[in-house]
Amino acid sequence: MVKFVGIAGSLRPGSYSQRALELTGDRLRALGAEVELLDLREMNLPLCHGGDDYPGYPDVERLRRAFSDADGLVLVTPEYHGSVSGVLKNALDLMSFDQLGGKVAGLISILGGQANSNALNDLRTILRWVHAWVVPEQVAIGQAWQVFDDGGKLTDAKLSQRLDGLAQSLYDNTRKLRGLA
Amino acid sequence: MVKFVGIAGSLRPGSYSQRALELTGDRLRALGAEVELLDLREMNLPLCHGGDDYPGYPDVERLRRAFSDADGLVLVTPEYHGSVSGVLKNALDLMSFDQLGGKVAGLISILGGQANSNALNDLRTILRWVHAWVVPEQVAIGQAWQVFDDGGKLTDAKLSQRLDGLAQSLYDNTRKLRGLA
Amino acid sequence: MVKFVGIAGSLRPGSYSQRALELTGDRLRALGAEVELLDLREMNLPLCHGGDDYPGYPDVERLRRAFSDADGLVLVTPEYHGSVSGVLKNALDLMSFDQLGGKVAGLISILGGQANSNALNDLRTILRWVHAWVVPEQVAIGQAWQVFDDGGKLTDAKLSQRLDGLAQSLYDNTRKLRGLA
Amino acid sequence: MVKFVGIAGSLRPGSYSQRALELTGDRLRALGAEVELLDLREMNLPLCHGGDDYPGYPDVERLRRAFSDADGLVLVTPEYHGSVSGVLKNALDLMSFDQLGGKVAGLISILGGQANSNALNDLRTILRWVHAWVVPEQVAIGQAWQVFDDGGKLTDAKLSQRLDGLAQSLYDNTRKLRGLA
Repeated sequence: MVKFVGIAGSLRPGSYSQRALELTGDRLRALGAEVELLDLREMNLPLCHGGDDYPGYPDVERLRRAFSDADGLVLVTPEYHGSVSGVLKNALDLMSFDQLGGKVAGLISILGGQANSNALNDLRTILRWVHAWVVPEQVAIGQAWQVFDDGGKLTDAKLSQRLDGLAQSLYDNTRKLRGLA
Repeated sequence: MVKFVGIAGSLRPGSYSQRALELTGDRLRALGAEVELLDLREMNLPLCHGGDDYPGYPDVERLRRAFSDADGLVLVTPEYHGSVSGVLKNALDLMSFDQLGGKVAGLISILGGQANSNALNDLRTILRWVHAWVVPEQVAIGQAWQVFDDGGKLTDAKLSQRLDGLAQSLYDNTRKLRGLA
Repeated sequence: MVKFVGIAGSLRPGSYSQRALELTGDRLRALGAEVELLDLREMNLPLCHGGDDYPGYPDVERLRRAFSDADGLVLVTPEYHGSVSGVLKNALDLMSFDQLGGKVAGLISILGGQANSNALNDLRTILRWVHAWVVPEQVAIGQAWQVFDDGGKLTDAKLSQRLDGLAQSLYDNTRKLRGLA
Repeated sequence: MVKFVGIAGSLRPGSYSQRALELTGDRLRALGAEVELLDLREMNLPLCHGGDDYPGYPDVERLRRAFSDADGLVLVTPEYHGSVSGVLKNALDLMSFDQLGGKVAGLISILGGQANSNALNDLRTILRWVHAWVVPEQVAIGQAWQVFDDGGKLTDAKLSQRLDGLAQSLYDNTRKLRGLA
């Protein structure tokens, strides 16, 4: 069985990034995957100091173990200042090739304004750097405040289809690349 | 008088990023600038939650005020996973156009391995996003463990000259762009 | 008097890139600048072979001389495959630091679909590489087929204002950076 | 049988990009692949005008057919002005999703000076844009003038191993992703 782990790089209460993560997790589960979603708002992660050990922060180990165990990754970032949030980058900085290398990732970004691909492009390069794969499909959700309903579903059919496509590609190609197909 | 503020995105004790920041600060002061260097290792900054207010974290206000008061910026980042450190990005995420827009920045990256421009490229795009200027000169310091002596000076003459060039360009062009020349 | 040269990286008859270039040229002239716009569709430029000499192609020299004489640059590119057009990159490849270094550039991209910043980001990095400046203001014109009227003017007031802002910043800051203010 | 097509974006006689392409082609053939290498120096390709038809340029159709028939791609670019050569970008501009989508690519860059990843990063984003895959392994060959011997072989053992790794990953993962494994 193919396993995914997902995180969203926003600590905002009511975060749209977290909602998009949950929608993607639902789709992957519906396809037959095992999915673990971590909520960074409920974890106590330190700022990365470049070393390996973070005594007093058991959530670092929890993060690393979840990523180690996964075949594929779902990463959602709010686009802050035209790039990945520091929150998400810091979580990735706390990990290394050991947890990230060889994994297959699907990427989503959330923007308050018009959609753009800056954060997705940067995240794609970052993941390449740790020798992860990134599926070609990606979703940038612009003007996020108006595309989610109260239940956290996407009201925009086109975006919803793009999320379907991302989940399907991530599921299928993770299985192929990880030899689980 | 032209004023600069500088930060380095590494929390490592003995950080080369911090040394490079200090060397750049020295050069700017020698040219006649007023320079304030903040040490993120001695500040207590929270992870950005996307909002404006961080009660209980007076260092957020200290960071913002130092950047508000400056004409120019020196930003040094270790290259982690082929991009800006989460530590530096998070510090930038805690600020906005109010503190960063219209400023003139000089960029330096520090790498354990071979030099590369990934983090510098990403940082350049990020600063554009907040409508800051970035001088064309930039310095990537590869294999940083072997180019600093015990006193924190650069032992590589070519790198030292590049740092001179960066400081000179940053000083001259900040004065021009800020109408202080 | 401050001098600008502009090119657009589209060879399409009726090119929106060329129209955006002309609109920007008009604005710069209205501000008091001298402007020379080259039309790549009417020039005979070879594919760059990495050397300096292109016997039989006098337009290479014409291109280089126009850029040499300029203080500032206007570069417009259609976004092809999420980046700068080969046509524009090839024109830039035919030049070097001699023509491009120290110049101040304003960037515009044209897209058939939704606006995006990919080509602008890549172009910004390219210009840094030849030690040119790029003003923070930039304009991505999405769905270009519906924002120009028959006379080649922009029908979208917001885009038109952004183009005004780009031209103003380019004019003001080229003068500052080139010591003409 | 898995099929690859390769092109190099340099028109220079004695091009190192072309040599790197040939070395990669040899490795892929040794692994059991069918490989077609096109030499852009011997093809007559026009500058892309954004349309589909290029009467008088049969090599456009030859290029497109070779890419259509391939499962995987080898793309080599000299790094010009910190990015992909206009020659290579123009060749890609002459194609579309029809020829490029769903393919699996391996990327190599050639530099006269110190190695850097700018062109590779840009090329990765470009290929994503046409929904191609890019393997995580990539090779930037710096100071190319001193790492090839007279027979066109790499004299640097580490680079040679990296090229082996790229070819192996490209071969294995193209088979997996294309359902040929």
